[in-house]
Amino acid sequence: MADTAFHQPGKPGYILTMGEILVEIMATERGQSFREPGTLIGPYASGAPAIFIDQVAKVGSPCAMIGCVGDDDFGVLNVERLRVDGVNVSGISVIKTATTGSAFVTYREDGDRDFIYNIANSASGHLSVGNIRDDLLRQCSHFHVMGSSLFSFRIIEAMKKVIETVKGHGGTVSFDPNIRKEMLRIPEMREALDFILDYTDVFLPSGHEVMLLASASSERGAIEEILKRGVREIVIKRGKDGCSYYDGSAEHDLPALRVDEIDPTGAGDCFGGTYIACRAQGFAIERALTYACAAGARAVTQRGPMEGTATLAELDDFISHASEQSHG
Amino acid sequence: MADTAFHQPGKPGYILTMGEILVEIMATERGQSFREPGTLIGPYASGAPAIFIDQVAKVGSPCAMIGCVGDDDFGVLNVERLRVDGVNVSGISVIKTATTGSAFVTYREDGDRDFIYNIANSASGHLSVGNIRDDLLRQCSHFHVMGSSLFSFRIIEAMKKVIETVKGHGGTVSFDPNIRKEMLRIPEMREALDFILDYTDVFLPSGHEVMLLASASSERGAIEEILKRGVREIVIKRGKDGCSYYDGSAEHDLPALRVDEIDPTGAGDCFGGTYIACRAQGFAIERALTYACAAGARAVTQRGPMEGTATLAELDDFISHASEQSHG
Repeated sequence: MADTAFHQPGKPGYILTMGEILVEIMATERGQSFREPGTLIGPYASGAPAIFIDQVAKVGSPCAMIGCVGDDDFGVLNVERLRVDGVNVSGISVIKTATTGSAFVTYREDGDRDFIYNIANSASGHLSVGNIRDDLLRQCSHFHVMGSSLFSFRIIEAMKKVIETVKGHGGTVSFDPNIRKEMLRIPEMREALDFILDYTDVFLPSGHEVMLLASASSERGAIEEILKRGVREIVIKRGKDGCSYYDGSAEHDLPALRVDEIDPTGAGDCFGGTYIACRAQGFAIERALTYACAAGARAVTQRGPMEGTATLAELDDFISHASEQSHG
Repeated sequence: MADTAFHQPGKPGYILTMGEILVEIMATERGQSFREPGTLIGPYASGAPAIFIDQVAKVGSPCAMIGCVGDDDFGVLNVERLRVDGVNVSGISVIKTATTGSAFVTYREDGDRDFIYNIANSASGHLSVGNIRDDLLRQCSHFHVMGSSLFSFRIIEAMKKVIETVKGHGGTVSFDPNIRKEMLRIPEMREALDFILDYTDVFLPSGHEVMLLASASSERGAIEEILKRGVREIVIKRGKDGCSYYDGSAEHDLPALRVDEIDPTGAGDCFGGTYIACRAQGFAIERALTYACAAGARAVTQRGPMEGTATLAELDDFISHASEQSHG
């Protein structure tokens, strides 16, 4: 029964994720260049898996993160933020010889974003099998993988170990590909994505990503192909066009709530965290999707990648205000 | 004759430096924490040797820099800035797999600064013997070493090679220790500093650094000890207390120009660049010291580490305005 894929009564445990922890520094003006000084704002807590797990904590599910920060105030900012919001941070290591990762972001006139990243050579690049705490693995009932985290072979190795362990004791895995096309040209990266998809229970691609990991030439064909591989639920995030759900029998299409976009960064991660946490708490599919859509929509109204994470009460409030204003 | 230590008529050539190239991001408020979002300003061109060589170029001496930046807008900002100001940037490599170095700086209420650095794991950390261009070495008549650049053994190895080559063909070396005390506890670092001092013609310490590399227990004793080692000129930078010059026969003490401090970062580098460039152009000691003091004072009135570099005309103007207002 698809509707209980995550609902595992008698098997409570952590929702776990692993990957990059960053600060984000944002340009304040549209079209602002990083080739000259300007006004910036930050540091904001960031990193796709960190945003995801913060949202899981806000929805009220027990959760933990494995990652690395530097011995600096950027690391303190991130770890304290996650801890205060309810994430078990015992799996976050402090790397003395590296700086906490960072992303500078500026918005082009057309709304696209340009980034300057320091991730692979930051503390987050030190993440390896050695950082995996066995106690967290034992207590983990669900593991979430962000494709953005797969930037080194030693991280891929660590991901494989966690996936195999969690699945080995009956846990589930979700996967948000969140990848750049160029990654698929690296054979080892493509192989890693295939490996992860083979173990994935819940697949959370953005619209354009559905076909990246399938050979089918249509979205519908790709969905069927991925379900045949053993994925139990596919939720396609379509941004301002809402989301779609497929499990081979049921299908749902939900419109997005209409909002004024302030900052899209982190919206997909908030969507994913909400969906996974709601489903883990036994919410029916449509209810979980409704909250997930609301979390994504609410996130884009807040400046800062992790500033849009929200509790269910905040999402209820947001939904009721949004539906007063329009019908999607 | 001490007065002609740098004046090598018939032997023109580049003033060369080598080391870290960074962007600096500044907090805008005093006491601002990097543990929460706030308003920042940047990126500014930075890196002690980069500031030094930019100042040399502004004084009008032929000059070049060896260093590494990432393949990003922070690198472009730095390289273009140096190029436009007249520095030969052919020795600056673009490292595809690394990000341009960065320093976040915030000012405490007491005026002290707190930094979050990404240098050793940035593009600047890739600097090695392989980045040294032989054509630049051949044309180099003077090499300047910043102690801040000695953060890896492979950089120290590169520094030794440049020093030996430049001295081998009759060039001169200046050295601004610019070091943290903790570096002296690392035996290889202490050995490297001793090596550099053995080859140094012009030593440019800050006041508190004079005794760090000598065994004497007084500043006077340390000066004598360092001159005995073969250093020809010692210029001690004393910040708002001016500067002092020693060469074993002549001594000069110059007061500082009185200014309102906006941002002290880079002032010592501007002082050094001005002194070395003026002396290389054959200026007498007192005239070179006067310009150097003015360059340091003017630099602290400008926000941004490299924003205070100035031409001799700008320094003349600055000196005449400053002397209208007070007598130091």
